[in-house]
Amino acid sequence: MPVPSDLPHLSPKEQVTALADSVRPADEAIGSAAADFQLRLTKPRGSLGMLERIGCRLSAIARQVPPPIPERSAVVVFAADHGVVAEGVTPWPQVVTAQMVATACSGAAAISVLARQAGATLSVVDVGVAHPVPSLPGLSDRRVRAGTRNLRLEPAMTGAEAAAAIVIGYETAVGLVAAGVGLLAGGEMGIGNTTAAAALIAGLTGRSPAEVTGRGTGIDDAMLAHKITVIDDALARAGSGLDPFELLVVVGGLEIAALVGFYLGAGARSTPVIVDGVIALAAAGIATALAPAVRGTLIAGHRSTEPGASAALAWLELEPVLDLDLRLGEGSGAALALPLVRAAAAIMNEMATFDDAGIDDAG
Amino acid sequence: MPVPSDLPHLSPKEQVTALADSVRPADEAIGSAAADFQLRLTKPRGSLGMLERIGCRLSAIARQVPPPIPERSAVVVFAADHGVVAEGVTPWPQVVTAQMVATACSGAAAISVLARQAGATLSVVDVGVAHPVPSLPGLSDRRVRAGTRNLRLEPAMTGAEAAAAIVIGYETAVGLVAAGVGLLAGGEMGIGNTTAAAALIAGLTGRSPAEVTGRGTGIDDAMLAHKITVIDDALARAGSGLDPFELLVVVGGLEIAALVGFYLGAGARSTPVIVDGVIALAAAGIATALAPAVRGTLIAGHRSTEPGASAALAWLELEPVLDLDLRLGEGSGAALALPLVRAAAAIMNEMATFDDAGIDDAG
Repeated sequence: MPVPSDLPHLSPKEQVTALADSVRPADEAIGSAAADFQLRLTKPRGSLGMLERIGCRLSAIARQVPPPIPERSAVVVFAADHGVVAEGVTPWPQVVTAQMVATACSGAAAISVLARQAGATLSVVDVGVAHPVPSLPGLSDRRVRAGTRNLRLEPAMTGAEAAAAIVIGYETAVGLVAAGVGLLAGGEMGIGNTTAAAALIAGLTGRSPAEVTGRGTGIDDAMLAHKITVIDDALARAGSGLDPFELLVVVGGLEIAALVGFYLGAGARSTPVIVDGVIALAAAGIATALAPAVRGTLIAGHRSTEPGASAALAWLELEPVLDLDLRLGEGSGAALALPLVRAAAAIMNEMATFDDAGIDDAG
Repeated sequence: MPVPSDLPHLSPKEQVTALADSVRPADEAIGSAAADFQLRLTKPRGSLGMLERIGCRLSAIARQVPPPIPERSAVVVFAADHGVVAEGVTPWPQVVTAQMVATACSGAAAISVLARQAGATLSVVDVGVAHPVPSLPGLSDRRVRAGTRNLRLEPAMTGAEAAAAIVIGYETAVGLVAAGVGLLAGGEMGIGNTTAAAALIAGLTGRSPAEVTGRGTGIDDAMLAHKITVIDDALARAGSGLDPFELLVVVGGLEIAALVGFYLGAGARSTPVIVDGVIALAAAGIATALAPAVRGTLIAGHRSTEPGASAALAWLELEPVLDLDLRLGEGSGAALALPLVRAAAAIMNEMATFDDAGIDDAG
């Protein structure tokens, strides 16, 4: 069974708790053994820097030294719309989400190109796009509802809707792992979703909306100030003392909920998953708040220029692989990090040890 | 002819000048046209950050918008020994250079793994390894002499030796381009070569040896202080007012000279070349001092932790793609940047434009 078998009989919050409880922690003792193993490879100690740290993380996740080299990698983009666009937080109309999905499935979106370059499969999961999307190769229709409600005025989702999206993301991850995928990367599409992400990150980290809200696709000063007001209002309306699931319900998004489930599913199957930019990091934050053990399964792909991304990375205590001034989303930064993560595993499997090479370790 | 045909009749310095004069500048107007083209791709303006800047650089080099996607990539490692190891600037014995070359050719060095992961061919060129290296697949024997002289006491090379190594590097680059390689990356192996690199970077940038000298493979405080003294002595002995070729002759290395030629050859054939860490950056600095136009052909692969690397990057005004705390050399950081450079070209060739996708550009 891809998900715990009694799931349909549980309340939404109980469903999410059951998925969170299925996360298998990475084994940090095996991570330490991997660090010792790195010292035996024919290179000065620590000279591969972050590549060594990624390799140790992969070992801790797989509970194996050296870790397996992932033969198959998959990028999944979850797409959904946001009722908060009615507040004028972005210059892009909501129909663009559906157009982006179509472009991704046609192979001509940034994420299509980058997944192909990384040798990864790409699939797009519609969990709540507002406008109709034609049936396309690589697209799966799992629409929970046609976009969230306006989070400034009311909860973005019901608990049942958020739980349904989480289950979809979870099933997607475990399904890919069952099909032989050893390395996952998640992305998203959804006009307006940097507003939801900033609200979630503010709610999680306790930072003010002004600190964690950015320009998204490139809005001007006036729209940025308005976006911050919208988030302030939403959080004030939501009130304090929310648990992470409640926070997701009131100010999150369907694609964000699906990413939460995707990370939980990766954690349940001890499979490394690369996190993308600010929206994905908001989801990773909620997933970690629900199931602290999932953090050990996450690899931060990059540091987005969005201020919320750095806030979430700090809160998650994750060190991003890349810092390329990216702010595109779609999973683009995660896909770009993919070859580096694979290289980290290959180094541990294919490099000679000092014993093999007959070199004395002077380092 | 791979190199200017009258080369053998020229003095060493004239030979190097002839190679430097063959560099074809990148076309910055085409780079600007590429930046305009990036605005037409279906993404918020500037949202792919450094990937867009790399794409524009590739366009300027190839004089083509979009730039070609390099189908074949090659990593070349130049190897040589350094007489300065007699001064005790490293704990590793000189025989390790020959062992590293053998390990690289066997497929089990870090650079072997990383070139393979990046889908690039790897070749190793022995331009001056002190100890015997058996004939191995992927190794070419172009030994100029069995290691340099001790640069603390006398010039590391003669002008003829340095020019010979530069010609080898140049021929290697133009030969690969003639064979269809569209993207080059250079690396090096040579016990003691961070000493030569720091001396070159101090000489080029005017910074003090103490500022630009690092721990190389991981030496302790006492050895670092001694290494700085050795470099101080070498530069004092060399005197001031040296031109870049003379600086290379007195404190450089054979593999560094070969890398200088490699960059000039890439520039002569309008082919992008990814620069690795501190030793490669020292060579890139000399190449740029000899032929300022070559700078436009260089892509800095990463920021090594060696202080000389940051000094050279600043002097070259190059922005590194990666910052992974690497300090291995061998071309490892250049090989790791290779998929990102290729992705930058693919983005410009394969992404939809706003016209294609029927999306209005709101950015």
